Amino acid sequence: MGRWEPNARGRLEQAALELYGEHGFDATTAKQIAERAGLTERTFFRHFADKREVLFPHGNPLLERLVGALADVPPETAPIDAVSAALQGASDLFRERGDLARRRQAVIAAHAELRERELIKLAALAAALAGALRERGVPEPAARLAAEAGMAAFGVAFDRWIVDPEGLDLSRLVRDAFTELKAVASGGGL
Amino acid sequence: MGRWEPNARGRLEQAALELYGEHGFDATTAKQIAERAGLTERTFFRHFADKREVLFPHGNPLLERLVGALADVPPETAPIDAVSAALQGASDLFRERGDLARRRQAVIAAHAELRERELIKLAALAAALAGALRERGVPEPAARLAAEAGMAAFGVAFDRWIVDPEGLDLSRLVRDAFTELKAVASGGGL
Repeated sequence: MGRWEPNARGRLEQAALELYGEHGFDATTAKQIAERAGLTERTFFRHFADKREVLFPHGNPLLERLVGALADVPPETAPIDAVSAALQGASDLFRERGDLARRRQAVIAAHAELRERELIKLAALAAALAGALRERGVPEPAARLAAEAGMAAFGVAFDRWIVDPEGLDLSRLVRDAFTELKAVASGGGL
Repeated sequence: MGRWEPNARGRLEQAALELYGEHGFDATTAKQIAERAGLTERTFFRHFADKREVLFPHGNPLLERLVGALADVPPETAPIDAVSAALQGASDLFRERGDLARRRQAVIAAHAELRERELIKLAALAAALAGALRERGVPEPAARLAAEAGMAAFGVAFDRWIVDPEGLDLSRLVRDAFTELKAVASGGGL
């Protein structure tokens, strides 16, 4: 299994996102990513099944963080406010990744197939969030509507944040977007 | 170009949906579809590029109907109510298709790749709806939030309707789902 490489996974991710940005996702090879990271191709494949998995890791850490944040929300909280609180709580995960998140988003935005993959991932996230709400006792269709409308608000916040991930506060943008969602849903926004 | 076949496209669609339901989407061939419809394979390929296009036709007639219905909504209508009215107006399209819509949905529900394709189509529909709202003068993020939250409400209505498309009124279910969306977004639904 070769030598232990300090933070090999993080170095590979950084190198991959740089190369996807410079040459495009399709033109980048695992070999080039490993070279840029100063590691071997074998090490790349110990961490990622293929170059797409760098962008879409298994296990969905965001979902885990969301479900964890939801568990901290008092049970009497309205479903839409619970979703807002969970998304604000999970925002840390993005803050920690800062510039990596911005690079990842630029790569995805430039590639139709990756955009589709991202859509599917976000839909799975909304479905999981609806499931977590049902487990808290929220009935249908409130669980689904709160999760899906909430993900729409999160999308608005995320797109504002990604322009300047080091300078802007995602958690605050999430809160603002939920305020806007509530205004729109109650017949405002014209 | 062979003889003129009365309603060839409709007969091919009906035959395809029957066969996808009976044998699964993957196991069905264009030849079998043509045979079931009493037509030639050549006629099938005059109407559809492949067997997937039967489920996802070019041109998206629902989008055209939606944009047309939106044009009939008075300009002073709140964005969320304009989306509701447009989706209620476009419901006719489903009513006309009745049992075909139910069969199509069952085929898609049974097949992971088709479910992903449907998600991508619905996201494109939400984006187009947001664009149509912007053209009516609705600012962002209200346009996007109204379109995406509205599609969530439509999804709830559609899933209720598809159980009994001949007996239930989709337009009314859409109206009800928007009422539920408004309640959830304003902090209800617990």
